Amino acid sequence: MTANAMHSRSIPDEEKRRERSRSRLAGFLLLLATAFVSSTVLLAADAPADQLPSWNDGEAKSAIVDFVTRVTSEGGADFVAEVDRIAVFDNDGTLWTEQPAYFQAMFAADRVKAMAPEHPEWKDKEPFASLLKGDMAGVAASGEKGIVDMVMATHAGMTTDAFTKIVTDWFATAKHPRFNRPYNEITFLPMRELLDYLRENGFKTYIVSGGGIEFMRPMTEQMYGIPPEQVVGSSIVTKYALEGDTPVLTREPKIDFIDDGPGKPVGINTFIGRRPIFAAGNSDGDYEMLRWVTAGSGPHFGLIVHHTDADREWAYDRQSHVGKLDKAMNEAEQRNWLLVDMKNDWRKIYAFDK
Amino acid sequence: MTANAMHSRSIPDEEKRRERSRSRLAGFLLLLATAFVSSTVLLAADAPADQLPSWNDGEAKSAIVDFVTRVTSEGGADFVAEVDRIAVFDNDGTLWTEQPAYFQAMFAADRVKAMAPEHPEWKDKEPFASLLKGDMAGVAASGEKGIVDMVMATHAGMTTDAFTKIVTDWFATAKHPRFNRPYNEITFLPMRELLDYLRENGFKTYIVSGGGIEFMRPMTEQMYGIPPEQVVGSSIVTKYALEGDTPVLTREPKIDFIDDGPGKPVGINTFIGRRPIFAAGNSDGDYEMLRWVTAGSGPHFGLIVHHTDADREWAYDRQSHVGKLDKAMNEAEQRNWLLVDMKNDWRKIYAFDK
Repeated sequence: MTANAMHSRSIPDEEKRRERSRSRLAGFLLLLATAFVSSTVLLAADAPADQLPSWNDGEAKSAIVDFVTRVTSEGGADFVAEVDRIAVFDNDGTLWTEQPAYFQAMFAADRVKAMAPEHPEWKDKEPFASLLKGDMAGVAASGEKGIVDMVMATHAGMTTDAFTKIVTDWFATAKHPRFNRPYNEITFLPMRELLDYLRENGFKTYIVSGGGIEFMRPMTEQMYGIPPEQVVGSSIVTKYALEGDTPVLTREPKIDFIDDGPGKPVGINTFIGRRPIFAAGNSDGDYEMLRWVTAGSGPHFGLIVHHTDADREWAYDRQSHVGKLDKAMNEAEQRNWLLVDMKNDWRKIYAFDK
Repeated sequence: MTANAMHSRSIPDEEKRRERSRSRLAGFLLLLATAFVSSTVLLAADAPADQLPSWNDGEAKSAIVDFVTRVTSEGGADFVAEVDRIAVFDNDGTLWTEQPAYFQAMFAADRVKAMAPEHPEWKDKEPFASLLKGDMAGVAASGEKGIVDMVMATHAGMTTDAFTKIVTDWFATAKHPRFNRPYNEITFLPMRELLDYLRENGFKTYIVSGGGIEFMRPMTEQMYGIPPEQVVGSSIVTKYALEGDTPVLTREPKIDFIDDGPGKPVGINTFIGRRPIFAAGNSDGDYEMLRWVTAGSGPHFGLIVHHTDADREWAYDRQSHVGKLDKAMNEAEQRNWLLVDMKNDWRKIYAFDK
């Protein structure tokens, strides 16, 4: 028996009685306080603080607030139990910028440069040779095989712990070429507010991205308040092995899962195991995810970020190589997906915007 | 402007003042109540209610309580932030019984019988022919290929929604052959208490099982309080498709991922993305998971359920075909893994035990 346990068993009856009445008093006070707080909250609810301050007033913002209000109104026809309030967000072009290239491609390019001294053979091997000469057209000319080679050379061949450190170090030092700021600042403030707003209303927020799952996970908590276990992404094969007597997971140069296009509903089903009620994307790579989520039998919401602001960010859609938005935009009205017009709907894009 | 908004903006100053002072009073009362509640809780903490009543007092129970106390003691050397309190549990033989066969095998056998009228060819095809004649030795003789054929015939070829319904219906009607009770009652009460106890102490509890992820997910919330997104398991390939204009996910007759043995740390890394600090298993299939979890740099705990009770459950270890426990048991002491002796450490095994 511990000293504590002995002590507790020797509390005299008088003290126990006092404890009980103290406990009852506390209960009463709590009840009283709750009643007052409730009435205050009810009054305050008439004029709620704006939880989406970077969104201009208008149809887009109203549609979001209306949906969240409906699914959280107990007793209402569209009420959704908290456990089923799952929201999924694409990352590239939806939560952060994807121009002038996917951030993960910028990472891979930086890694090739950093690793080049140990790889003299890259001087004669594409796409490495072109990349090291700064010839991006040459890199592009190497096609999908070239890109995969570059990804495998920079993303595989180390343990998961080692890769996490490489990614973390890159985010701590690399800067976006246009804004000259760390990449974790090139995230969309209105979308971060939306994530917060949904979470405050009982939603569980997930990233469902074509990007590498282990490239995103070290940063998503800090950037978006999304923990690693709520990040779904593409992956390469990982293997259990022993280094001496220490278990490690090694990253193998082989694609495991592509979480893009029709892969997104599959990823959602594998990782989450239930159908979300809210999906946000920005490209045709999100089309099937939007279809899957908005085919649910209960209330649901589909949102598309339309890049319309060349001044503050970028303007692109149907013709773009990165983040092409064509089919999903064509069907947005018919399927009741909200098309967010970045230029007009967002008061700020980045937190550093004036 | 809505009627509510108009109302809020026309609250006269007098009312606003009253609201403010009501709010201040509520805040004060809440503070007061909190102070009282806290002191009550502190006193109560000296004599905690037994949260593991189905565990006999002894080394096993003490070791668990001691670990949980250490990692939740703020300011202590072994304190672990709540976000990192991840616990993983094998399912077959750890949370529910795995005898006389894995429950999922019983499910597959029942499905073969139910589907047989639509499959006259099964009369001449192994392992179906043997199974339909009740010749389990014949089924076993068909080897791994036979088992895979049976799993694919019963688990693939339908949508995910259809499969979920099949599984749910089976659990609602099928009964365990020895206990003649629904399978969801053949779960270990001490382990369910342990799950509750960990969750009450800020742990996030996961299943990491060799069983099929979509076979477990419809039931784990009800059985263990574990939601679908916290279930990691083996899977077959799933594909996005359109049925008419309706998006569906179809289950294909192809293995996607085997979450067993060295697959368990891989599954943990893929689904959770951080290293758990608590792992429970019962067989050599959990060996690598136990190694991975207990190789963490912070506090960690490994637990093995040893089936030692032939009267109330089953007794088996080194020689068993199902749930073989050999290597993990050999290394338990050296690696400081707790070997739980079902017979002596558990007062009750099932909730229906007297």
